[in-house]
Amino acid sequence: MRNFDVAIIGAGTSGLSARREVARLTDNYIVIDDGELGTTCARVGCMPSKVLIQVAEDFHRRAHYDAIGITGGDGLAVDTRRVMSHVRSLRDRFVRGVLGDMESWTGDHLVRKRARFIDPNTLDLGDEQIRAERIVLATGSTPVIPGPWQPFRKYLVDTDQFFELEELPSRVGIVGLGVIGLELGLALARLGIDIEAVTLDKAFGGLTDPRLQDYCFEKFQEEMPIHLQAVTSLSEGNGELHIHLEDGTTLSVEAALVTMGRRPNLAGLGIEELGIPTDRGMPEFDRDTFRVCGMPWYIAGDVNGTRPVLHEAADEGRIAGYNAVRSEDQCFRRRSPLTITFSSPNVAMVGETHQALTKRNADFVTGTVSYEGQGRAIVKLQECGALHVYIGREDGLILGAEMLAPDGEHLAHLLAWAASAQLDVHQVLSLPFYHPVLEEGLRTALRDAAAQTTTALSPLEVLRCSDPPVGIRG
Amino acid sequence: MRNFDVAIIGAGTSGLSARREVARLTDNYIVIDDGELGTTCARVGCMPSKVLIQVAEDFHRRAHYDAIGITGGDGLAVDTRRVMSHVRSLRDRFVRGVLGDMESWTGDHLVRKRARFIDPNTLDLGDEQIRAERIVLATGSTPVIPGPWQPFRKYLVDTDQFFELEELPSRVGIVGLGVIGLELGLALARLGIDIEAVTLDKAFGGLTDPRLQDYCFEKFQEEMPIHLQAVTSLSEGNGELHIHLEDGTTLSVEAALVTMGRRPNLAGLGIEELGIPTDRGMPEFDRDTFRVCGMPWYIAGDVNGTRPVLHEAADEGRIAGYNAVRSEDQCFRRRSPLTITFSSPNVAMVGETHQALTKRNADFVTGTVSYEGQGRAIVKLQECGALHVYIGREDGLILGAEMLAPDGEHLAHLLAWAASAQLDVHQVLSLPFYHPVLEEGLRTALRDAAAQTTTALSPLEVLRCSDPPVGIRG
Repeated sequence: MRNFDVAIIGAGTSGLSARREVARLTDNYIVIDDGELGTTCARVGCMPSKVLIQVAEDFHRRAHYDAIGITGGDGLAVDTRRVMSHVRSLRDRFVRGVLGDMESWTGDHLVRKRARFIDPNTLDLGDEQIRAERIVLATGSTPVIPGPWQPFRKYLVDTDQFFELEELPSRVGIVGLGVIGLELGLALARLGIDIEAVTLDKAFGGLTDPRLQDYCFEKFQEEMPIHLQAVTSLSEGNGELHIHLEDGTTLSVEAALVTMGRRPNLAGLGIEELGIPTDRGMPEFDRDTFRVCGMPWYIAGDVNGTRPVLHEAADEGRIAGYNAVRSEDQCFRRRSPLTITFSSPNVAMVGETHQALTKRNADFVTGTVSYEGQGRAIVKLQECGALHVYIGREDGLILGAEMLAPDGEHLAHLLAWAASAQLDVHQVLSLPFYHPVLEEGLRTALRDAAAQTTTALSPLEVLRCSDPPVGIRG
Repeated sequence: MRNFDVAIIGAGTSGLSARREVARLTDNYIVIDDGELGTTCARVGCMPSKVLIQVAEDFHRRAHYDAIGITGGDGLAVDTRRVMSHVRSLRDRFVRGVLGDMESWTGDHLVRKRARFIDPNTLDLGDEQIRAERIVLATGSTPVIPGPWQPFRKYLVDTDQFFELEELPSRVGIVGLGVIGLELGLALARLGIDIEAVTLDKAFGGLTDPRLQDYCFEKFQEEMPIHLQAVTSLSEGNGELHIHLEDGTTLSVEAALVTMGRRPNLAGLGIEELGIPTDRGMPEFDRDTFRVCGMPWYIAGDVNGTRPVLHEAADEGRIAGYNAVRSEDQCFRRRSPLTITFSSPNVAMVGETHQALTKRNADFVTGTVSYEGQGRAIVKLQECGALHVYIGREDGLILGAEMLAPDGEHLAHLLAWAASAQLDVHQVLSLPFYHPVLEEGLRTALRDAAAQTTTALSPLEVLRCSDPPVGIRG
């Protein structure tokens, strides 16, 4: 039986990051993956979705052409076969990039097999068994489609399948408006496809601030009908899928994109058979080190269900890999929370949510700005959006922010960095804001918040030197 | 004779900021302006140029349509009459905004007259003379057109005139590729107008890094011919303007946009007649307080020729106004240097320039990234750009950056904020970078720089907790 220092199950973002850390200290490791290589992100996640969104945004701009002096916009159309072909073409480029990065090590270390635990240190790979001192579980996740819907599977598309569509149906249901559902639903709507979206609540992209939830609901409704309902059942007729909602409505669509979340890929690993405690299949693990309690295992990336976004999965993989080759587990600081939904405008969340702040009775003020009427948003013909920033009333610290904002992805980075650096709102107001930029809207919200703090200062006073001026000639 | 605590000459960005500060402490002030109201920025500067650029960018996207599955792009055209009408329509909205903000105070305080000094505290306004304890000079600047070119004035357009054009000529010379020339030249080129650009050097948007200058020259050349030449003379023939260059080339154009810089509006104020020392008409002033040496005056905004961008002009006005109503001048910290040219991609400069760092023999390393091949740039079909970040070799501090980058305006804010907060490169690498975003390109440059510092750390080590882990269960 072959013996390894470390076995990594899963060659996705997290597993690849773990490998890099492991390989710094040992060459005696194995990476096991029997699925498609290239990462969820590049194959069926972040990357192809952004490509589709970009095409949709480009096509959508024609709505403004008449007003701005560009003629012929009426003659534009979308050829969805070619759109999907473009999406796959760039996707393939990204996947090739991932595979290219793997070439230097796969020969010796990658096995394309399915792993199953025999005991905590032994894995059955089908044609052999191997032993490893430590094992990193980085098996990722899979889109969920409820069991009772399986009879209608031919109408249902998940994100693993979506980007393989040769062309786009003309009438599509979107079931679930989390990050992926919202991104793809809005993109498809802007490509001219009839959308019927169904979601249980207004927590678009994770928003928790009720005013922003309502604002987004109103704005997104202008792009696609959104039904705030549960789906009670599906049926079919006349070659269409019927989606039955709680309120009695029936939506008839050609196909439905089901984006109701993802399930950790844990089934089939034989974990439960080892008799260790699990919560619906998930073993208990330490959230600082990713060590599975009582086991020589680490669980990192989407499979642990905690922070299913790429940069966090990469960090978790690195942490797991780092610990897997050391005798004592080390803990690492996590980065400030930051999530972005690449809708148009972007939904973004920074730091603590409005809900979390409210729940812990934080003493905070909310600074707000509307992007309707904001200078640069007017120029860009993107007058849509609202940003709320949550600031400690007494210390002025940036606690969090939620927003729907043009180029919100960039504003969210600024806020996340300022919050991480523990700048207070007055310090942030002393930083440069160019003109005319969308950041000036953020400044409006920060000024609004600053005026509500107990340490309110005028915009100029934040620049006042503490020392008396030098060399002043009267 | 009326007596005022403060007279402010000029109701532009800086003068209006000064007025706000003055009005906090006294109602006995006067604002004097005989020109068009609404600010240079809103009338003929930042705002209308951004509107034109936006139209150009929208029109330019059609170049990608065929590749991404949008059909009918060949039928798009630009109606330059309607484009200019759109530009003026938004410009008017911005000007109305400025004028609306003025309404609350103008009745009592604004006079539409020309001011001329009689003595340091007395101004002649034509039909009356007034006295003021302190005077703020905020008269702005005017585009320069060389005297010998006046006979060809009918072919020459400056930025005061450009946005009034009913339609755009089909062949335009751009003389001077500073910020404004570069922005408008590229926008016009992207609107399909034949451009002949003339500039003395490759300092596009202020760039000083030779490698970036060369890169930009190559990239901008793909959009419009750029002649690195001096203009020796102008002539006319066949209803066209001939621009004669040093190397003997003659460029024939319908009109030339002259963007060779701006001259402070000081002539006619009678300053030199008071016998105070001036340098080409500019009185000596303190750069911390904007106090004119030996005089009860402050000189703020574009007229002082130091930082001719809106947010700096606004700060200077506030500082001048603050000091003008106080017995002792106070000094204020200036914001980190940040300049953005809204070309596509953006040129942006943060902190100290490459030239300044080299000149002072700073011990720095340069981290670089190319946006050709950067993930999100691929998605956006904007694979153009390069970013250089300058980091202190021993302390890892962010000293400055220069870039040509997609959405560089946002990246520049991030860098300017991080530099202002005196974060070192390792701290910045511990901040969140989402995926897939253009900020990841910035991260590549920062990692490149970090590896060259004397305190180089692995990407993971920057997240390592300094305290031993708590509550780890093996």
